[in-house]
Amino acid sequence: MTVAAFHPIDVILKKRSGGELSKEDIEQFVRAVVSNGEAKRAQLTSASVTINEEGITDAQIGSFLMAVFHHGLTRNELAYLTTAMRFSGEFFETETLNSVVVDKHSTGGVGDKSSLLIAPILAAAGFEGEPFISVPMIAGRSLGHTGGTLDKLESIPGFDCQLSLERAMSVLRECHATIMGQTPLLVPADRMLYAMRDHTGTVESPYLITASIMSKKLAEDLDALVLDVKVGSGAFMPTYEMSRLLGELMVSTGEAAGTRTVALLTSMEEPLGRFSGNWLEVWECVDIMKGIRHLMSADLIELSLVLSGWLLYLAGKSATPESGATLADDILKSGAANDAWLKIVRAQGGDTSVFDSPKNFHRPAFKRTLHAPENGFLSSMDCKEIGWAIQRLGAGRERPGDPVSAHAGIESHAKIGQAVKVGQPIFTLYSEQESKMGEGYSILERNIHFSDTPPVKQPLIHEIVQQTKANKK
Amino acid sequence: MTVAAFHPIDVILKKRSGGELSKEDIEQFVRAVVSNGEAKRAQLTSASVTINEEGITDAQIGSFLMAVFHHGLTRNELAYLTTAMRFSGEFFETETLNSVVVDKHSTGGVGDKSSLLIAPILAAAGFEGEPFISVPMIAGRSLGHTGGTLDKLESIPGFDCQLSLERAMSVLRECHATIMGQTPLLVPADRMLYAMRDHTGTVESPYLITASIMSKKLAEDLDALVLDVKVGSGAFMPTYEMSRLLGELMVSTGEAAGTRTVALLTSMEEPLGRFSGNWLEVWECVDIMKGIRHLMSADLIELSLVLSGWLLYLAGKSATPESGATLADDILKSGAANDAWLKIVRAQGGDTSVFDSPKNFHRPAFKRTLHAPENGFLSSMDCKEIGWAIQRLGAGRERPGDPVSAHAGIESHAKIGQAVKVGQPIFTLYSEQESKMGEGYSILERNIHFSDTPPVKQPLIHEIVQQTKANKK
Repeated sequence: MTVAAFHPIDVILKKRSGGELSKEDIEQFVRAVVSNGEAKRAQLTSASVTINEEGITDAQIGSFLMAVFHHGLTRNELAYLTTAMRFSGEFFETETLNSVVVDKHSTGGVGDKSSLLIAPILAAAGFEGEPFISVPMIAGRSLGHTGGTLDKLESIPGFDCQLSLERAMSVLRECHATIMGQTPLLVPADRMLYAMRDHTGTVESPYLITASIMSKKLAEDLDALVLDVKVGSGAFMPTYEMSRLLGELMVSTGEAAGTRTVALLTSMEEPLGRFSGNWLEVWECVDIMKGIRHLMSADLIELSLVLSGWLLYLAGKSATPESGATLADDILKSGAANDAWLKIVRAQGGDTSVFDSPKNFHRPAFKRTLHAPENGFLSSMDCKEIGWAIQRLGAGRERPGDPVSAHAGIESHAKIGQAVKVGQPIFTLYSEQESKMGEGYSILERNIHFSDTPPVKQPLIHEIVQQTKANKK
Repeated sequence: MTVAAFHPIDVILKKRSGGELSKEDIEQFVRAVVSNGEAKRAQLTSASVTINEEGITDAQIGSFLMAVFHHGLTRNELAYLTTAMRFSGEFFETETLNSVVVDKHSTGGVGDKSSLLIAPILAAAGFEGEPFISVPMIAGRSLGHTGGTLDKLESIPGFDCQLSLERAMSVLRECHATIMGQTPLLVPADRMLYAMRDHTGTVESPYLITASIMSKKLAEDLDALVLDVKVGSGAFMPTYEMSRLLGELMVSTGEAAGTRTVALLTSMEEPLGRFSGNWLEVWECVDIMKGIRHLMSADLIELSLVLSGWLLYLAGKSATPESGATLADDILKSGAANDAWLKIVRAQGGDTSVFDSPKNFHRPAFKRTLHAPENGFLSSMDCKEIGWAIQRLGAGRERPGDPVSAHAGIESHAKIGQAVKVGQPIFTLYSEQESKMGEGYSILERNIHFSDTPPVKQPLIHEIVQQTKANKK
């Protein structure tokens, strides 16, 4: 078969005019982006505008991304783009695991540590005589107002997120789950396109977000995937409709690749659970897996069980998502999830002795309490701002590469809808630096609201998005 | 005054979302483009994505251009962009000429050599005791299906188009007109943006075309400008409406800069005049200026007089455009335009002895005649294809920098609407290479059409676009 010479300009012109790109157009485009990125890393090219039949320039990548921003992508184009990115570097091949391979992904929230519960629950869900479930979870870091699973895990002394694919497979064989960072060789096209999107004003395209998320998730070679798409004041997408669109695009892209995929639109109107902050969130999960269920953890536990239930259902372990959630709760209560958790942490070098008394391991230098200013009801929060407050306390980062504090964060003492009395504690703030306390406190103070009458409480799960005929188009 | 730090991403995001850019946004953007281009020329940068507060990356320029392609520019944005580009390098300062300074510009046609007539007519239009008119004409080269004034002039032995600004001013002082190429220092922002547009799929934006044309024309420091915007099958713009929009944008941009600007939408349904090709077109003009008016030159002469008439009117030399055209005809008939022409050619190093017998100087190696295949009327042509046929004969170029033949081209023996008899010559084709004759001939043959009844003849001048209150918005 002869392959036609690649002319980036033709692909740009087609997309610019609202035409549909072919599989070959997109594969050649992604290959050219990776070559361009590798050449830059090797500093073999100069910035001068050099165009040849094989190559693509930065300016062309920028103009292509902006054309996609304006026209979107058809379901076929999105599937081709995601697949081309998925196979742009190294990727998991999970057939040898003899497992049902599943994962969950969240679009990013505040205090959302459900991955730390779901991975052990699923890892513990294999039974004698049945296929095990394996969870090759590639997770991310804190950025902006959202927390990151890797930063949470790294607050455990010795825990190593930087696994090679080979070592990840060995942890998977031993523990049926691993939580790891993206390797330098995994899905390089996404890393390169993301860097381009970040500075060309094309980050917010739901099509490009879908390709970015799904190329990484599908590179895990999954049988099933559950997506937690946040809606509400703490969500990344600006409107409910955009979150639903993102959910639909991700579901159709996953299904097109042969992975059973479901998206849940879930509420992100206030921090999930009791704690927000790196070690604080590990502490909360350690408690839950030990059987200690704090009142403030109820929403987190509910979300984790619902997501686990869907994964157990899609993995064939339960007849319905609801019975899956019950099974997940049983696994949690039996202590099997805690055993799996300890095994995973040890396999990745973590010191599990700190789990004996997580409260004692929490040693923030400074602490301050924010109290209710009046009698009434906690009525709403700007949850994105709450996330920024946690970041300012030291728990998060503004820019990739910034350091994060293990012990900074907040404890929630009340949830939206709850009746409060003047002077009652709402949040306890923790920080390593006194200077950071003031800014965090004032952001929190400005962004929580009280009312005389109880607010209408949002449901935790708003909507389930599954593949439909309409989505397939 | 403190200048705010420039963040290209903010400008991109504003344009991407349909917002209006400020004068400062656009000035900083153009400055950054020029710095980026200069740095690349000096090979001081590597292609790696480096972003700082002052700089801009190629990818950002590409995404900005694509955002402008989709959203367009407001009249204010277009005026700011054009002005920032106009002053991005060196530019004419014509106050010391004590002249009314005028120019014409065409969007590009086939056989359109009106510049070679208009510049001498205007140069000769100064009278004792009145201010002279000066024409600092920066012209272009053949590209694709359109001819270029510089290539035509360079078929005159010794003629030098590559004048410095200083030498151009000296020719202007002596001859009241010069026809020259863009200097390397003139309007560098346009050269850089054009190179970017060319390979990022953003050439066809009427807003970016306007900024490109008008930045160069306004850099001539003009009192008046007449724009010949082609419509029809040989026009660059795909529809009449797009040509009119381009005319309106150029007029409002010129007027915003204080230059009296008028656009004429003129017919480009067939090659203008008798000849198309470099020396062939000089020959036709030399004949006309000597007083020899071939029947086939009627449309060219009419167009040149109308455009000259408008310039004479805008320059205050005539009470109406119509009386201006009559004055232009008088100047042509008096021999004064021919005198000005000879003076200009000599001032730029050209050997005017070849004008004594232009036909004898025309020495193409090969010649072939295309005859009418039937009795009837010459009804239509695909004029863009006729332009490509001329290019294929050797007279034009497919890519910038390709060489052109001085003597290739065609002679028209019939015009649209004319009755023809089978076997009557329609075109004579000239080429330097026999191999090129076949392709040119077959393109011509396929793209001229005959009918039994006379076709409806299009007017030469379709519409005059002037500044109106509606345009100003």
